[in-house]
Amino acid sequence: MQLIDGKQTSKEVRMEIAAEVAKLKEAGAKIPHLAAILVGHDGGSESYVAGKIRACEEVGFKSSLIRFEDDVTEEELINKVKEMNNDADVDGFIVQLPLPKHISEDKVNETIDPRKDVDGFHPVNVGRMTIGMPAFISATPQGIMELLKRYQIDTKGKHCVVIGRSNIVGRPMSVLLSQKGNPGDATVTVCHSRTANLKEICLQADIIIAAIGSPGFVKGDMVKEGAVVIDVGTTRVPATDTKSGWRLKGDVLFDEVAPKCSFITPVPGGVGPMTITSLIINTLKSAKKEIYQ
Amino acid sequence: MQLIDGKQTSKEVRMEIAAEVAKLKEAGAKIPHLAAILVGHDGGSESYVAGKIRACEEVGFKSSLIRFEDDVTEEELINKVKEMNNDADVDGFIVQLPLPKHISEDKVNETIDPRKDVDGFHPVNVGRMTIGMPAFISATPQGIMELLKRYQIDTKGKHCVVIGRSNIVGRPMSVLLSQKGNPGDATVTVCHSRTANLKEICLQADIIIAAIGSPGFVKGDMVKEGAVVIDVGTTRVPATDTKSGWRLKGDVLFDEVAPKCSFITPVPGGVGPMTITSLIINTLKSAKKEIYQ
Repeated sequence: MQLIDGKQTSKEVRMEIAAEVAKLKEAGAKIPHLAAILVGHDGGSESYVAGKIRACEEVGFKSSLIRFEDDVTEEELINKVKEMNNDADVDGFIVQLPLPKHISEDKVNETIDPRKDVDGFHPVNVGRMTIGMPAFISATPQGIMELLKRYQIDTKGKHCVVIGRSNIVGRPMSVLLSQKGNPGDATVTVCHSRTANLKEICLQADIIIAAIGSPGFVKGDMVKEGAVVIDVGTTRVPATDTKSGWRLKGDVLFDEVAPKCSFITPVPGGVGPMTITSLIINTLKSAKKEIYQ
Repeated sequence: MQLIDGKQTSKEVRMEIAAEVAKLKEAGAKIPHLAAILVGHDGGSESYVAGKIRACEEVGFKSSLIRFEDDVTEEELINKVKEMNNDADVDGFIVQLPLPKHISEDKVNETIDPRKDVDGFHPVNVGRMTIGMPAFISATPQGIMELLKRYQIDTKGKHCVVIGRSNIVGRPMSVLLSQKGNPGDATVTVCHSRTANLKEICLQADIIIAAIGSPGFVKGDMVKEGAVVIDVGTTRVPATDTKSGWRLKGDVLFDEVAPKCSFITPVPGGVGPMTITSLIINTLKSAKKEIYQ
């Protein structure tokens, strides 16, 4: 069994990007610029955005943070989004979710220029991904694709079972893995809460992507010998032996499943560390006009 | 075994729409208007467009046909698309494919206002469909969903195997059937040319959607007793006993497969007749602003 070390891979990707940025600086070229819009003071959102800005600093990107209070109007927020769309210095930007209830997330999302939508949530990017055109892919799926690629995990003709059909993980993973390409060309089954014979289907899987948000859902007797298991779950469960009082739990019962696997991602330290790095990858792609001309 | 009669269903849908249009006329309201842009004189395209216009007449829609010769420039065509986007009388329009090689189909497609994209090919509509927002769904997948609904075929928790991953059939079918809803909520497996154990997977299917364009590909020994089989194949094969010299062949070896099925679509007369009707459904939805406000 080999552990897929997302922390290490993330570090490597960031070092590669930092080297590329250093060259840009040497050549006197424009430095990639990621901006984040943060509304309110939710603890989770604060720490995500802080992590994104730290990652920018680490690779040498320019970053900016635009803050609004919770009582910002939808119109004000949308005007700021339009301003960012038109700011030639900004290569990509994100609006940190969730937003206060009086603001339509769909409306804000659809206002973002798809060419700067490094979160990959705009319908144009989802649509382009679905039909196999160049597109910004959202953070978690892109991180998983990067891990599969760097660990040279062969997906062609393999049976991949995706548990979960969310718009941010399950759905894009099922599309990407079944498309032509490498990683890709897999036979993909999408399972979810309505699936009748989940255990039977999982037992056929060469690759399992568990993305349901149910701690320890995938047990040892659901996984065949030699399978690759990617655990996307990150549920906070109460813990008495941590300073925070909680601990991250994956969707996979690691101790039971790991001995049967050829490859497995741990939680924490597997998929998680790749997500912010994916945003950095997308910002670089935007700066280099790799997706849109 | 029950035959799914697409010809009959299509007729019923058109009659329902005709009744709705008649009411609009009575009330003095605007009549839905579908426009088609046709470039060149390809025989297949001519006959598809003619069928679309006939369908408009049948239900009482207004229709218009804009023709260009093969040597139209990309710019001229795109200007016409923009004109249609801005024509308040046009509820929906299509640009008949294929286009001559000197014109980018992607560029033309992306110029169409998604709110009038009744073919459902624009990335915005594909993206909205993928994330479960209201969207124009392309003709064949929408026709299949309508058949499943009208024949009250239960898809919830069923294992549905989609053979083929094309952007116009396989991909959208796999997304729609695995989404929440009815029809929907199925466990969906996407198979394609790289799939290793296709027969084994098909034998598990409660519902098979065959969309590979390979005549007679699905054989009797690939289908379990009681399965629902939807045949999307329409390959022209040479025939000595028809006036045209050819005959339509589906992807399913009907004589072997039909006796095992609970429901099956014939070719011709199954999925095919529903495609143009889907376009009519979409045009009505556009006129009623059901997808976009």
